[in-house]
Amino acid sequence: MALTIAQLNERLLISPFHQWLGLRLTAADSHELTLEMPWRHEVVSNPLLSSAHGGILAALIDLTGLYAILAAGGVARATINMQVDFHRPAIPGRLRSIGRPIKLGRQLSVAETRVLDDEGKLLSSGRGTYIG
Amino acid sequence: MALTIAQLNERLLISPFHQWLGLRLTAADSHELTLEMPWRHEVVSNPLLSSAHGGILAALIDLTGLYAILAAGGVARATINMQVDFHRPAIPGRLRSIGRPIKLGRQLSVAETRVLDDEGKLLSSGRGTYIG
Amino acid sequence: MALTIAQLNERLLISPFHQWLGLRLTAADSHELTLEMPWRHEVVSNPLLSSAHGGILAALIDLTGLYAILAAGGVARATINMQVDFHRPAIPGRLRSIGRPIKLGRQLSVAETRVLDDEGKLLSSGRGTYIG
Amino acid sequence: MALTIAQLNERLLISPFHQWLGLRLTAADSHELTLEMPWRHEVVSNPLLSSAHGGILAALIDLTGLYAILAAGGVARATINMQVDFHRPAIPGRLRSIGRPIKLGRQLSVAETRVLDDEGKLLSSGRGTYIG
Repeated sequence: MALTIAQLNERLLISPFHQWLGLRLTAADSHELTLEMPWRHEVVSNPLLSSAHGGILAALIDLTGLYAILAAGGVARATINMQVDFHRPAIPGRLRSIGRPIKLGRQLSVAETRVLDDEGKLLSSGRGTYIG
Repeated sequence: MALTIAQLNERLLISPFHQWLGLRLTAADSHELTLEMPWRHEVVSNPLLSSAHGGILAALIDLTGLYAILAAGGVARATINMQVDFHRPAIPGRLRSIGRPIKLGRQLSVAETRVLDDEGKLLSSGRGTYIG
Repeated sequence: MALTIAQLNERLLISPFHQWLGLRLTAADSHELTLEMPWRHEVVSNPLLSSAHGGILAALIDLTGLYAILAAGGVARATINMQVDFHRPAIPGRLRSIGRPIKLGRQLSVAETRVLDDEGKLLSSGRGTYIG
Repeated sequence: MALTIAQLNERLLISPFHQWLGLRLTAADSHELTLEMPWRHEVVSNPLLSSAHGGILAALIDLTGLYAILAAGGVARATINMQVDFHRPAIPGRLRSIGRPIKLGRQLSVAETRVLDDEGKLLSSGRGTYIG
């Protein structure tokens, strides 16, 4: 692994949006990286369901894939594009986001990510393509 | 058009995340819908570029497409999935998001959205698929 | 426009798969490119509907976007990835595929494509990202 | 598993396009399904590389995901949309396509698929969303 969890967390939290989301990188090796995000009221999309906004889940898929590539020793300077499927409403509670590299390239890398609720139920999944 | 701009804005701002983003729906007909979003520091991903996070642009693409479908008299209860391309870093300034329905269906609808900076430069584009 | 229609057609038909599909590029400028494809029985996915296979529509979206970028003077050596929405079954008849560049970049370009039936009904739509 | 391999193969080969591709379903359980496709000259996109067309790889990703859902006892009547990443040129040789369900739903299901060459190198990967 190219960077330690402490180093990845330090880099992760340079971002004001990552700070606002309260992210914490809890595990990482070259195959899989895990992030946790606490709930905050401002992420709610539909107040009747208290469900998190699709953009919040998309943010997790975008950034978790990027850090999964970095943790695997790959290069990922920016996201080119991403695709996100929404499987279940994300209701209040801690979110866990698990990313895995699919392809590490010199120029382009791809990672897939799953976002789970605190009981391990799949809320959203997707993939990002990153440029080195 | 099924709903007035005032009605669409009212519905838009029920969402705590839309309030936090400071969104305002400024124009809508059955072909095109426009939203504006002011800048706020917390959306920054990379503090060196002061660029907005991909998840913020993805949120705009997700929600603008959904409201474009509603404004066209379509039905869109939830997003099934979406795809987002990032073209340029979104640096501080007002963002404009313009959505257009591609297909209005009884069960499934698709819309495409472009996010522009204040000078009209394309920052991001994508599409969402919505279930009625 | 960088290349004439005759030049684009010549390049298009170097590909054995494009020959097999019977493709013909019928119009092109820097904003829009149109291809036509005749029906052939082997493209059928579901013989009960006689509908064309999703992979055939995906092929049209992939290649039409690439040629739309070339026709606009852009560079597109290969497809990085693509996204395809299926709106209606493509039943027997001539298909028309219309591509438009969304973003022309030095390194990366994006185009969107719509596939229509002979009466102009939208069958499928999508976008591709290309590397120069 | 809802259907045997023989039953899945029988259903697979009702499609004229699947026959043309020479597909054969070689393994399937509720977690993973494997298809093989022999090479044929007509699938070539770029004759300099002899590489398979993106639409052929997209066809494999579309259909393998659908059959992976059926093999897992899910319902998948049609593909709503799909996303495909191209990682390496697919040069002449047998292709192997391996699909896994990500989410089995009553209404919507999602599967991911990887296309490998005969030595197990990853050529393409992607995901499809299917309606029941």
